[in-house]
Amino acid sequence: MAIVLFTDFGAGDAYVGQVEAVLDQRAPGVRVIHLLHEAPAYNVKAAAHLLAALAAGLEGHHVFIGVVDPGVGTDRGAVVVRADRHWYVGPDNGLFSVVAARAAQRSVWRIAGTPSAAARSFHGRDVFAPIAAALARDGFPSPSPSLAPADGLSVRLGDGDLAGIIYIDHYGNAWTGLRADALPRDRTLAIAGRELPYAGVFGEVPPGTAFWYENSSKLVEIDVNQGSAAHALGLEIGMPVAWR
Amino acid sequence: MAIVLFTDFGAGDAYVGQVEAVLDQRAPGVRVIHLLHEAPAYNVKAAAHLLAALAAGLEGHHVFIGVVDPGVGTDRGAVVVRADRHWYVGPDNGLFSVVAARAAQRSVWRIAGTPSAAARSFHGRDVFAPIAAALARDGFPSPSPSLAPADGLSVRLGDGDLAGIIYIDHYGNAWTGLRADALPRDRTLAIAGRELPYAGVFGEVPPGTAFWYENSSKLVEIDVNQGSAAHALGLEIGMPVAWR
Amino acid sequence: MAIVLFTDFGAGDAYVGQVEAVLDQRAPGVRVIHLLHEAPAYNVKAAAHLLAALAAGLEGHHVFIGVVDPGVGTDRGAVVVRADRHWYVGPDNGLFSVVAARAAQRSVWRIAGTPSAAARSFHGRDVFAPIAAALARDGFPSPSPSLAPADGLSVRLGDGDLAGIIYIDHYGNAWTGLRADALPRDRTLAIAGRELPYAGVFGEVPPGTAFWYENSSKLVEIDVNQGSAAHALGLEIGMPVAWR
Repeated sequence: MAIVLFTDFGAGDAYVGQVEAVLDQRAPGVRVIHLLHEAPAYNVKAAAHLLAALAAGLEGHHVFIGVVDPGVGTDRGAVVVRADRHWYVGPDNGLFSVVAARAAQRSVWRIAGTPSAAARSFHGRDVFAPIAAALARDGFPSPSPSLAPADGLSVRLGDGDLAGIIYIDHYGNAWTGLRADALPRDRTLAIAGRELPYAGVFGEVPPGTAFWYENSSKLVEIDVNQGSAAHALGLEIGMPVAWR
Repeated sequence: MAIVLFTDFGAGDAYVGQVEAVLDQRAPGVRVIHLLHEAPAYNVKAAAHLLAALAAGLEGHHVFIGVVDPGVGTDRGAVVVRADRHWYVGPDNGLFSVVAARAAQRSVWRIAGTPSAAARSFHGRDVFAPIAAALARDGFPSPSPSLAPADGLSVRLGDGDLAGIIYIDHYGNAWTGLRADALPRDRTLAIAGRELPYAGVFGEVPPGTAFWYENSSKLVEIDVNQGSAAHALGLEIGMPVAWR
Repeated sequence: MAIVLFTDFGAGDAYVGQVEAVLDQRAPGVRVIHLLHEAPAYNVKAAAHLLAALAAGLEGHHVFIGVVDPGVGTDRGAVVVRADRHWYVGPDNGLFSVVAARAAQRSVWRIAGTPSAAARSFHGRDVFAPIAAALARDGFPSPSPSLAPADGLSVRLGDGDLAGIIYIDHYGNAWTGLRADALPRDRTLAIAGRELPYAGVFGEVPPGTAFWYENSSKLVEIDVNQGSAAHALGLEIGMPVAWR
């Protein structure tokens, strides 16, 4: 079991190390895996679909800290979720709702109150990390007044797909929220006024050619071989896609 | 105890891993925490105030390697500093002087000479990492001809605040070197020809609104809710701020 | 022994954490060192020279996963290489050929076939990481039908230097593929229509001055003191350099 971080804290900023320092104090020896710190900021829906795809692909069982949390410090709730083999700790703003909806078994605990010394803008460090460390150490939430079983999540995005762009990597490849498993390969993907054919992998098309394919997280992805699809097609997170 | 890195090496560059490899060889099993690798390059004063705020917020006691070191390879000195519960290893150029000035108890050792194989431009890897590893392992500097007790630091910035911008994160939030604890919330902050009111946290103001608040490291920070204060107000590290 | 990652996956993207999660499952407790995730994408030749310089500088013996792999998912081969004290796992596209050519002793195994569940575009996670974990655990490739001794690498770049730019760091310093050990310091380096003198280290020249020097990985590097050589001189990876 590792503690897995999925946040919009920025891979180069001063936030991730502060979270890891708390985890080191409270769950010494447990590996911390930095799954993503460039999750789409302010876009909880895109982030929820991205997290669901990435978490499904990780072997083992882990404790996730998930933070895409524009409402931090307001009265939005916070939760611990058990969805099949993984735990999730973070805001109750929909971020864990796709993971939860797709799980065969799920349980939800509400985080009631925050430590008095907690910074209002950094619950990842002051609220979620201590709870995640306790889960990684003890394997189950200790009964406590601040962690009570709940009926479910407040914001529910459902278990369906998201027909839009949810993530763009540094190569300029654009991930959609569409699971590719069941899709026929002879269909074209419409995006930004273009219609893109399927290819099995980068090397099957000439450099500079745009295509869609099933990426390593089993999502439909838009790519240009040895180029940037985001730049070539003008793609941004949130843009819709459609099948033809 | 962990070894905590605070540098301007760049989070994406080929330097940090080389330092971690040295630490792995010489202090196996000790966690390495990457607190910041985008510290303000060439601006030791801003970096010193930033380090002081971040170090104050970390639980436990740690060995810091601090590198913002435009004079590396020249005759600038190098030091080991004990300031209250943390150790610091790095250049004697003022980087640790705010931390030291604010500590109740401090001790300084001068690093005399460098290993003959040390690269002139990478003391972080070849000089500071081996000393930090030894401190993490042994808990105290071993008496040695290359590490001698010293009266104090050569460059002293004092224990006061810095009324200017010291760090800008990837959201575009601008940290100042002003500690916020004692500040009345009814004052406005003057920066770049604007006067900004206080807010408790992002969610208290409408999206797009600029404000100042006490950030998670207890510093005055300039933000725009769901936007970039740096972009909206044209902020850069080193710009002065004033109270009205 | 650590597992050392050298890839073009991007330091901020969602790929590195997925690889580390596989390593955590299969080689628990082994440190993972992120040497570089911004290796020059699509430029195997530059990456091969960069890897050779960095690997030569690491103490100890390690298992490297190397991924600069524009042909992933096509019929390019994959290999395990033992070159002196380090192991290398990755594509057989020349990436390890400089390291191998410079080694006193080398052995090559061919990776035959990929796990049926492997994603065609992410062999770093699904093919190379499991093999690297097994090497780190067992110290030697287990005899298996999927790993057979081979005569040598398919793509061989030789043991010579590369007279061009192979890497640009976030300061804008430009690394060349020229080893500096034997070079006379009174020569000037011609690049982009300029001729640059030698300096021992940054602090020996005034701010804003361009020069070449022997960097911390023993390569010729082009720098501007307290400035960006890449920006000032218009440098890009692949540009040739010459001696005058």
